[in-house]
Amino acid sequence: MLNYRPAANEPAATVRTSQGDYRVMVSRGAIENIGPEMRQAGITGRAFLIADYSMFPLLVRRAHEALERGGYETHALILELGEAAKSIETATRIYEWLGEQRAERIDCLVGMGGGVTTDLVGFVAGTWLRGVPVVHVPTSLAAMVDASIGGKAAVNLPIGKNLVGSFKQPRLVVHDINFLDTLPRRELAAGWAEAIKKALILDDDLLEVFEANAEDLAALSGDLVEPVIRRSVEIKAEIVSADEFETGNERVLLNYGHTIGHAIEAVTEYGTYLHGEAVSIGMMVAAGISHRMGLISEELVDRQRALLKRFELPVTLSGIDADTLIQATTSDKKSRGGKIRWVLLRGPGRSATSREVSTKIVRAALADVLVD
Amino acid sequence: MLNYRPAANEPAATVRTSQGDYRVMVSRGAIENIGPEMRQAGITGRAFLIADYSMFPLLVRRAHEALERGGYETHALILELGEAAKSIETATRIYEWLGEQRAERIDCLVGMGGGVTTDLVGFVAGTWLRGVPVVHVPTSLAAMVDASIGGKAAVNLPIGKNLVGSFKQPRLVVHDINFLDTLPRRELAAGWAEAIKKALILDDDLLEVFEANAEDLAALSGDLVEPVIRRSVEIKAEIVSADEFETGNERVLLNYGHTIGHAIEAVTEYGTYLHGEAVSIGMMVAAGISHRMGLISEELVDRQRALLKRFELPVTLSGIDADTLIQATTSDKKSRGGKIRWVLLRGPGRSATSREVSTKIVRAALADVLVD
Repeated sequence: MLNYRPAANEPAATVRTSQGDYRVMVSRGAIENIGPEMRQAGITGRAFLIADYSMFPLLVRRAHEALERGGYETHALILELGEAAKSIETATRIYEWLGEQRAERIDCLVGMGGGVTTDLVGFVAGTWLRGVPVVHVPTSLAAMVDASIGGKAAVNLPIGKNLVGSFKQPRLVVHDINFLDTLPRRELAAGWAEAIKKALILDDDLLEVFEANAEDLAALSGDLVEPVIRRSVEIKAEIVSADEFETGNERVLLNYGHTIGHAIEAVTEYGTYLHGEAVSIGMMVAAGISHRMGLISEELVDRQRALLKRFELPVTLSGIDADTLIQATTSDKKSRGGKIRWVLLRGPGRSATSREVSTKIVRAALADVLVD
Repeated sequence: MLNYRPAANEPAATVRTSQGDYRVMVSRGAIENIGPEMRQAGITGRAFLIADYSMFPLLVRRAHEALERGGYETHALILELGEAAKSIETATRIYEWLGEQRAERIDCLVGMGGGVTTDLVGFVAGTWLRGVPVVHVPTSLAAMVDASIGGKAAVNLPIGKNLVGSFKQPRLVVHDINFLDTLPRRELAAGWAEAIKKALILDDDLLEVFEANAEDLAALSGDLVEPVIRRSVEIKAEIVSADEFETGNERVLLNYGHTIGHAIEAVTEYGTYLHGEAVSIGMMVAAGISHRMGLISEELVDRQRALLKRFELPVTLSGIDADTLIQATTSDKKSRGGKIRWVLLRGPGRSATSREVSTKIVRAALADVLVD
């Protein structure tokens, strides 16, 4: 069922977009081959490596050396790239560095770090000289299975997250599974939340793999880590290829758990929950709504809860009241004309959207998740 | 030869791009019909009108009323939009306003002003919520025949112009010729320079129209103003449709006169010459190079000079030495791998590019234009 031992030089997926097709390479040690992959992607200029300061210097050096070995003159900029740095100010700092280095249109940015890095470096690459190539080297699990694929690039404003951005597809994405070995377990779990989400909305088989191997995957042990990541990547790639700009009915499904997830993050000022944790709670609310609307059985809600708990992901929320959360959902930028488009389950591995969810049902589903 | 009296609701051109096709409406009073045109372009949300403070309030009010009459709830922001305002800071100010108004993805920005407005509002529209529709209402001749068509959007950094931007195609462009009546003659001439450039590189017939009607056009009198603008728009639309991202051999031709033009602007710190004036001098240098490389006769150089002079455009340059200019050309962002791609004439209405222009020839052509 899962593509178990693919050749290392076989991409997990090829993403097809209006800005060109690109490969997502997934393997232990994938970074070593970044040079030839970039060559194959048609990148000819210099490489400007922008890396998150919080990463182990050894990993950055490994990437730097692999780029040089691949024949790319490489310049590196190490920055603090936490959520607070996902700003126009940080983008401007990178622009200034690129200006000093006289980075040209044929040159390439290589972003190395978590989702903030992917989003920020993607945004800079989309806007520097009206667009230069970008390669993503995600180092967190969340960035691997989600942020690095699909071209959503953005920075935050003081008034809201991801308000300024663009669609900037990378030329290549390189997932080196070895990078995950250094991640804290909590951050890993938050990454798995995004992969579990994909299984819940679209892939019954993957859901069963998660259920059969939860503890191993959570601990990053066993033989299934790579194939599960590859399958998650493949799902994301299929969705993006079908609905690049989220104008259709496919890409929006990836927002399962995100309406309440974003609201939780906003209300807690992004200081309490990792994104994947907020999404985990949000998925519980969305599943509850789905059940109360008669779309799924209570058993599936319980199955989802049990799985998330085995990954030590939160499934309840305390200290926040329903009104505050509901208020926060209405400022989500995906609400068109004021009406929220909820992503709901219709079964294991099946989902759909609805704009017709009553506040009463939302409150009832929230009540199941809110605890004192 | 020129499309003389077209129906007012007939577009001057339809631009075909990867982001969609759009019409460029050109007529006296075109603004009155902006509502139905936006409706036809599929715009359904609110209108956020961003206008240059330096415009006559009456014109802004006319646009505002036309939008409201067309059924669009309209909010207006009036800003100083001179070259110094073409910055990330101004973009951020607009983002904050859009945030306060809760502008959503279905809403539309309407930019009203000169080239700075077009570039800046286009950039904001390309990045707000990863892209919202934009309509350009250029009020300067330069913006009409050039900046408003083709989707080049950008802001400046302290280290250089247009370094940060994107390709953001508008949904509609509305040229109301009446707006030109309030422009100073010098600014009009600078606008004509961009139209004359198009004739020189691509349209022998249009060149002859300019030569037969220079004084009338410069004074905005006679019957040919509208058809000449329409034809200039059509040329620009054809080029953009053929080579949207300037990766081919078409769009680069529009840079005729711009290598030296940009250098002049940079060296004089954008305070001495209007863009079209710098391009006029730059075209004289490019024509001189073309002649010295044996591509055109000296007579065509003289023809070009005579035409530009009839529009009171500068054709010589004083107070700057050749070394300073040559140095400044190498920082142009269009130089790929360090080699400048010159746009040269091959005859009246014919042009080509070359990367093989010796510094010796550049110096000789500059010497003809530099005066004490």
